[in-house]
Amino acid sequence: MKIDVHTHFVPEVLPAMADRLGDHRWPATKCQCGKSHHKQIMISGKNFRTITDQCWSPQRRIEDMDHEDVTVQVLSPMPELLSYWFKAEDTLEFSRSINAELSAFIQNDPARFLGLGMVPLQDPELAAKELKRLKNEFGLKGVEVGTNINGKSIGDPFFDPFFAEAEAEGMTIFVHALHPIGKERIIGPSALSALIGFPTENALAASSLITGGVLEKFPNLKIYISHGGGTFSTLLPRLTFGWERMEEIRKVIPHPPSYYAKKIYYDTLVYDINTLHYLIGQFGSSRLMIGSDYPFLIREKDPGYWIDDLNISQEEKEMILYKNAANIFKIL
Amino acid sequence: MKIDVHTHFVPEVLPAMADRLGDHRWPATKCQCGKSHHKQIMISGKNFRTITDQCWSPQRRIEDMDHEDVTVQVLSPMPELLSYWFKAEDTLEFSRSINAELSAFIQNDPARFLGLGMVPLQDPELAAKELKRLKNEFGLKGVEVGTNINGKSIGDPFFDPFFAEAEAEGMTIFVHALHPIGKERIIGPSALSALIGFPTENALAASSLITGGVLEKFPNLKIYISHGGGTFSTLLPRLTFGWERMEEIRKVIPHPPSYYAKKIYYDTLVYDINTLHYLIGQFGSSRLMIGSDYPFLIREKDPGYWIDDLNISQEEKEMILYKNAANIFKIL
Repeated sequence: MKIDVHTHFVPEVLPAMADRLGDHRWPATKCQCGKSHHKQIMISGKNFRTITDQCWSPQRRIEDMDHEDVTVQVLSPMPELLSYWFKAEDTLEFSRSINAELSAFIQNDPARFLGLGMVPLQDPELAAKELKRLKNEFGLKGVEVGTNINGKSIGDPFFDPFFAEAEAEGMTIFVHALHPIGKERIIGPSALSALIGFPTENALAASSLITGGVLEKFPNLKIYISHGGGTFSTLLPRLTFGWERMEEIRKVIPHPPSYYAKKIYYDTLVYDINTLHYLIGQFGSSRLMIGSDYPFLIREKDPGYWIDDLNISQEEKEMILYKNAANIFKIL
Repeated sequence: MKIDVHTHFVPEVLPAMADRLGDHRWPATKCQCGKSHHKQIMISGKNFRTITDQCWSPQRRIEDMDHEDVTVQVLSPMPELLSYWFKAEDTLEFSRSINAELSAFIQNDPARFLGLGMVPLQDPELAAKELKRLKNEFGLKGVEVGTNINGKSIGDPFFDPFFAEAEAEGMTIFVHALHPIGKERIIGPSALSALIGFPTENALAASSLITGGVLEKFPNLKIYISHGGGTFSTLLPRLTFGWERMEEIRKVIPHPPSYYAKKIYYDTLVYDINTLHYLIGQFGSSRLMIGSDYPFLIREKDPGYWIDDLNISQEEKEMILYKNAANIFKIL
């Protein structure tokens, strides 16, 4: 059994926010002549990404899953859809449309698909209120959120009302890299921004969840971070070393950063078995879950193909393959 | 034998740039009443850091080195002295003063001390010209540079004239984290900026040296990065994975990022033996050198105390302890 907690969803046709509101920063769907399996996602007049029916077709997806021995996929919106940069009410409307489509998608095979929705987190109170609807009306298991919301780190106390409600409702949070910092510091093609910037984003998000006190204030929050937490694993020892030596940091969080780091879950999308072994050492096998980034270019095919090469026990392998995820999502 | 390649120097009294130029952003020395072993470094009217005579007293330093079994220290300026944010001519004047003081310091015991100077890198041509003086007049082995120079990554082609000359003169470059990106993304006390921001800085610098083509254009450059390259080790697999899949990135650099990553050296200042093992896996024992950040608060005491716990051969241990550094600095 294998549960992939990092896969993305885009409906076949996005709601026509761009045309209706006259703001072409809203993502919109454009058909490609003669290619019914492909669509373009247009943003501000440019092709943001060409996507395939892997994004919206349950049949196509099940075929791929069967081919790659994936039992369950957890689907979340393509992060660029999160739309925090619009009026909260408009994002709410867009979110409800995406959440409804996602909900309909997973109903095709509830034994194979789980869904994480989206909320207008630029307004944490509004986002918090929406969680009950995601859970009860749409049957979603949690929410995907960005590492930053319009430049504010996800661990900022500004978002506390949202985390309080997520904890109370038992909704899982998936923190995904978004609009990465430091573009001006990257030399080369723009594609490098997602390669270099995403891991950095994840590390800043994890750090903010710790030093912002989210994991102290909401100890029962279920939360996981994309791309193995990015570069957070290598940053953690220095953060812990500083915590031990600097009283002003100990004043903010009573436990060492490594304590909070082990309250977070991380997917395994690090592209390297040496790095996977390292993550197991830093966070423990009980904190890792298979994640692939299906169906995008940068995805790991045959997710978890490296599991037999890991120097850990069978029980630990099963935890990474599915038990940790099954436990979080309460599905076994 | 043990060579520590990451230690810092501050002269007992800084040149009086602040008073003379009427610009109190220049670092200046302030005595502390009755404490001859302590000074304050004042920047813009605030105490940037209280330092001890470990920064400027050869005797005190030799005592510490003997106590911690360090054979040779490589000294570089406290990074905040690099002063890239002033007029290049003024930075040049300041640099010459610091380089002269550092030169005088290492003359106290040339068998125990090596020096890396500083140059006005905001003007790469001027910086390049100054290298001969560092080498021939001051007897320095190389230059410490920032991960960014006024927000421009060190791998930007803007700095090519400097790297060309450093390669030609055989001067070693030590890239040190400076003025870290992302302060607005850190929640909590300002001390966190150096804990979270420095590793990120080092990763962005290493990435820029690779994707900016520095290591392709100057294949014989001797260069090392502080703090184990920061978070670069965990970022590298994703960068390599992207290089394999994206033609636009392969167009920029003919070899995979991991090829260039192994042209760089890294110090061992990662505060964690699990992370050290990981670095050995990512970069190889031939790329690591002891670094401690002596004499500052965040330093590793008894540098290399973990060497016996590393699961590597005696030959590899000796490479990390001194052979790699001896080879770079041509001292054995």
